[in-house]
Amino acid sequence: MSCMTAPLYLDDLTIGDRFTSPSYTLEKDQLLEFASEYDPQPFHLDDELAKDTLFNGLAASGWQTASITMKLWTETLHVANGLIGIDCHLKWPTPTRPGDTLRVEAEIVDIKVSQSKPNMGIVTYHSLTKNQHDQVVQDTTTKVVVFKKPAVA
Amino acid sequence: MSCMTAPLYLDDLTIGDRFTSPSYTLEKDQLLEFASEYDPQPFHLDDELAKDTLFNGLAASGWQTASITMKLWTETLHVANGLIGIDCHLKWPTPTRPGDTLRVEAEIVDIKVSQSKPNMGIVTYHSLTKNQHDQVVQDTTTKVVVFKKPAVA
Repeated sequence: MSCMTAPLYLDDLTIGDRFTSPSYTLEKDQLLEFASEYDPQPFHLDDELAKDTLFNGLAASGWQTASITMKLWTETLHVANGLIGIDCHLKWPTPTRPGDTLRVEAEIVDIKVSQSKPNMGIVTYHSLTKNQHDQVVQDTTTKVVVFKKPAVA
Repeated sequence: MSCMTAPLYLDDLTIGDRFTSPSYTLEKDQLLEFASEYDPQPFHLDDELAKDTLFNGLAASGWQTASITMKLWTETLHVANGLIGIDCHLKWPTPTRPGDTLRVEAEIVDIKVSQSKPNMGIVTYHSLTKNQHDQVVQDTTTKVVVFKKPAVA
């Protein structure tokens, strides 16, 4: 496990590298605000209405869990050119609840140098977003574009 | 193409059913606000800094495009128990820009009745989020839980 801070280039990364993020607490007000804007469904908006749904109580939009996960990635995976995702596969095994504190554990699972653009590659990482009870609220596999370190002239 | 409004149950859906959403315009202020909160990277925050990146100018976070897509789904796919996603695969072929007007076109591509819970099923739909130039800003395949219509006693 590591939490690297220097900007990372393609050559700095190896399959199996692991990263762990700081934590992020989602307050109820922020949960409701996000849901009102982007996912206005009863189980994301109202304690009472959420009780008799599949969520068994108020739950954050999965897209807010995904957005918080992104925030934690930006604080954890310090890729030199920024984290530019091109493809992402998400699952939400457990809902995120008001007041949950989330963190991310990520591991690089594949690295491919581009055939057409040899100064860059595609790095695939697998990431688990966990709550304070170590339950997985999001399981994500993401492909990002990472540059090689520019040659010194 | 249709834009159904009655609550939909599993039995109401057929592979090949198509849906088209209303539109949603993303203003620059809202783009910057989302990025500040969830994806604070230069190409999502600053016109000048974004110029020399892979985005060639200010671009919305992909997670904001995903969140807007969710909003449009809630206005389009009126599933009786709400849209509860369990698995989602996303690609972002084109960035979303400040001022873009997005809409969604979705098609049901698979329906599986649950073996263990015969009152529900998993519906898979493929969705394209397009901008005002008909460019695809997000290509998504999503699995949602849909209930069968309750039997009348």
